[in-house]
Amino acid sequence: MKQIRLNAFFQNCAGHQSIGQWKNPIDHSTQYKTLTYWTDIAQELERGYFDGIFLADVMGVYDVYGGNADAALRSGTQVPCNDPLMIIPAMAMVTRHLGFGVTCTLSYEPPFPLARRMSTLDHLTNGRIAWNVVTGYLESAAKATGQKTMTSHDLRYDIADEYMDVVYKLWEKSWEDDAVQLDKDAGVYTDPSKVHRINHQGEYYNVDAVHICEPSPQRTPLIFQAGASSRGQTFAAKHAECVFVNAPSKKIIAQSVKKLREALQAQGRQPEDVCVFALMTVIVGKTDEEARAKYEEYRRYIDREGALVLMSGWTGIDFSALAYDDVVKHERNDAIHTAIDRFTTADPDRVWTVGEVADHIGLGGASPLVVGSPERVADEMQAWMEETGVDGFNLAYTTIPASIQDFVDLVVPELQARGLYKAAYQEGTLRHKIFGKGDRSATASALAQASLDAVESAQLKVIG
Amino acid sequence: MKQIRLNAFFQNCAGHQSIGQWKNPIDHSTQYKTLTYWTDIAQELERGYFDGIFLADVMGVYDVYGGNADAALRSGTQVPCNDPLMIIPAMAMVTRHLGFGVTCTLSYEPPFPLARRMSTLDHLTNGRIAWNVVTGYLESAAKATGQKTMTSHDLRYDIADEYMDVVYKLWEKSWEDDAVQLDKDAGVYTDPSKVHRINHQGEYYNVDAVHICEPSPQRTPLIFQAGASSRGQTFAAKHAECVFVNAPSKKIIAQSVKKLREALQAQGRQPEDVCVFALMTVIVGKTDEEARAKYEEYRRYIDREGALVLMSGWTGIDFSALAYDDVVKHERNDAIHTAIDRFTTADPDRVWTVGEVADHIGLGGASPLVVGSPERVADEMQAWMEETGVDGFNLAYTTIPASIQDFVDLVVPELQARGLYKAAYQEGTLRHKIFGKGDRSATASALAQASLDAVESAQLKVIG
Repeated sequence: MKQIRLNAFFQNCAGHQSIGQWKNPIDHSTQYKTLTYWTDIAQELERGYFDGIFLADVMGVYDVYGGNADAALRSGTQVPCNDPLMIIPAMAMVTRHLGFGVTCTLSYEPPFPLARRMSTLDHLTNGRIAWNVVTGYLESAAKATGQKTMTSHDLRYDIADEYMDVVYKLWEKSWEDDAVQLDKDAGVYTDPSKVHRINHQGEYYNVDAVHICEPSPQRTPLIFQAGASSRGQTFAAKHAECVFVNAPSKKIIAQSVKKLREALQAQGRQPEDVCVFALMTVIVGKTDEEARAKYEEYRRYIDREGALVLMSGWTGIDFSALAYDDVVKHERNDAIHTAIDRFTTADPDRVWTVGEVADHIGLGGASPLVVGSPERVADEMQAWMEETGVDGFNLAYTTIPASIQDFVDLVVPELQARGLYKAAYQEGTLRHKIFGKGDRSATASALAQASLDAVESAQLKVIG
Repeated sequence: MKQIRLNAFFQNCAGHQSIGQWKNPIDHSTQYKTLTYWTDIAQELERGYFDGIFLADVMGVYDVYGGNADAALRSGTQVPCNDPLMIIPAMAMVTRHLGFGVTCTLSYEPPFPLARRMSTLDHLTNGRIAWNVVTGYLESAAKATGQKTMTSHDLRYDIADEYMDVVYKLWEKSWEDDAVQLDKDAGVYTDPSKVHRINHQGEYYNVDAVHICEPSPQRTPLIFQAGASSRGQTFAAKHAECVFVNAPSKKIIAQSVKKLREALQAQGRQPEDVCVFALMTVIVGKTDEEARAKYEEYRRYIDREGALVLMSGWTGIDFSALAYDDVVKHERNDAIHTAIDRFTTADPDRVWTVGEVADHIGLGGASPLVVGSPERVADEMQAWMEETGVDGFNLAYTTIPASIQDFVDLVVPELQARGLYKAAYQEGTLRHKIFGKGDRSATASALAQASLDAVESAQLKVIG
């Protein structure tokens, strides 16, 4: 049985997936603005041998619900939200193995400074950085950054493909491994003959520069992707080393994992070249009864409006026009019906009211929710692994710090006892830890070389 | 006698001003890639009651010398160079009072994400962030980020003025002080009526968004500026709270401080509204003889080529065309002559060879260099304070950690004994510590209000 990989799913804000838990007296999430909030979480995750913390991000507010940001603000739904990058160096200081997956959009800054930032973090964390590549999905973020409207979905991915070409070349092909010599006798810090200028004059980006950072442990950060669309999946099959999936049922996840692994092969890669993480929320107690009691307690703090703010943002449909008592499933067969299908358990006979949908989303957001004893949780995780082909889970919290503490204290020992989970970290970079080999990305290196070759052959054509 | 303010001048690289010291056996600067390098420095600076660490930055390589980056790479002159922002959270963790001045160019990303990043750092550091606003001066940085060539100098400042308007509005006018309510009974995280959308449709920037961060301790970070040109000084007089000046003699500094304080008054501000830091390099020993011996030892590691790489980058003149023995002063009366004047002591009768210039720049770069006992160094600093009107110094290191340790162990007690330097930190934000009052910027708030008023009056005109 393969080992379960675990990420913890966070955002640099209080309310991420389970909106309203800030009202719970045991919850500390409004302290997201402080360094110790994050270093405490990081140490706790490392105590539980988590592979990494995965930091989601938004660059705008959820303003589809009601057509403005009022409900998002009132409920604290992913707003206020700070920059995710800035908490990583502090968390790196207090840990030795934990990985840091960070969401950065490539839509709002040129490849060169982003490449430098990632190289810097890879140096400072000693090779523990992963980059979740996103192109942005909120209209509000586009408006915040000076665009009249969002670039169309497929074009965003074409631009992203070229962006990746540029950053790969900066990371993989600008500095040779032994460029930095630190030869005190000869007085040579870096051998200039081993540093190469990247001259990329493309359709969307022009870069003419040597990368300004020396090679970091991983060079290219571990690449995460979460695109669920067809174009997004092609992008993932080309670039991703870890993929983040989310659906309410094992059946749907199994289908999308299968499709992804096929898409990998179509790109000339191996099915196991990508590590797939499924979103999951766990509420665990020593017994099923204790877990159930926690669940009932957490339910008291659900912010229904906040839940529908998320739903509206994800689907583009304004749920504020409906009453909580409105029955939407089996009475309506429209876009809202379809949207709810995407985020509720795949029980075709169930009748849903808007309020029930809000309650469902209210704990764990769009993720499957598992409530029970350590044995029940481990059974469920094991079943997901066996029936879907995922490699592990992206665990969303309900309340901090209890959700993490409970999982580490109760579920981790159970998984270890079953031989499903590591009892020690491997040495090496994050990439090495995840795949058991290799600090650097063969994919990034090959794509960088292909891009260089394409430029060279175009030049030969001009000369010939 | 007013208290001396102290910043330590760094960049996230090994060779910053004194190029070649990485060859010195006591030097640790090639460890700039690690977190502990920076946390050790931060703790040492706080032990010496430094007001802050000032992080310079470049986004490109110095490639004027010889027309390429070879000499910069060979000598390790500000390359490799990592992102300065990423080391701040780690340094913040191990200190309580030290300020963090960080250089960020506004040329390569929209105002919205930069505003978020600064707000995040201001939260995490509990109000200890300063932003050194730059528009970039290296052609190589422009090419690295996809521009065909640099935007012209004065236009860069016009764009920067509008950029500042936008970030001030995001920081000062989007969230009211009591917007975040955390009212558990009412279920209100943030009161939406106290959060205001910033709609800026300007000449260079369009932003239509609420700021995504809640108010941080300082809101607007303490604003640093270092522009020496006439347009740069006007920009500084309008925006800056701290100004960084550099010249080889007290006489030149005195003139530029006087001009700056007059420019402040022309902008309706008070002369003392800006704290001026002069660049200085100090080599101190228990006695003059010991200091002199250190100086002679450090001289052995000077990289002359690296020094001329800096000179070439600063002046735009390629010094590689000259031999070290060439006499440039009193024989030539051209651009190189003028350039050397800017960076050597203002002794009109001195004859300089290129090699002597390189040696001069080789220790401390373009800064005045003070070598001597604690008493001699304190005398010199006192004389600079009295004769120039500066408020303190930006201290460049020669070698790390010795330069900082020596200063803290030897000079700080001497300055304290003379009543010229604090023996404890004040509480409060960095702004409060520097000016003895106020956590927030009256200037930023006034400029933000003026920008809002201008928009409103333009709209009234259209309606009228």
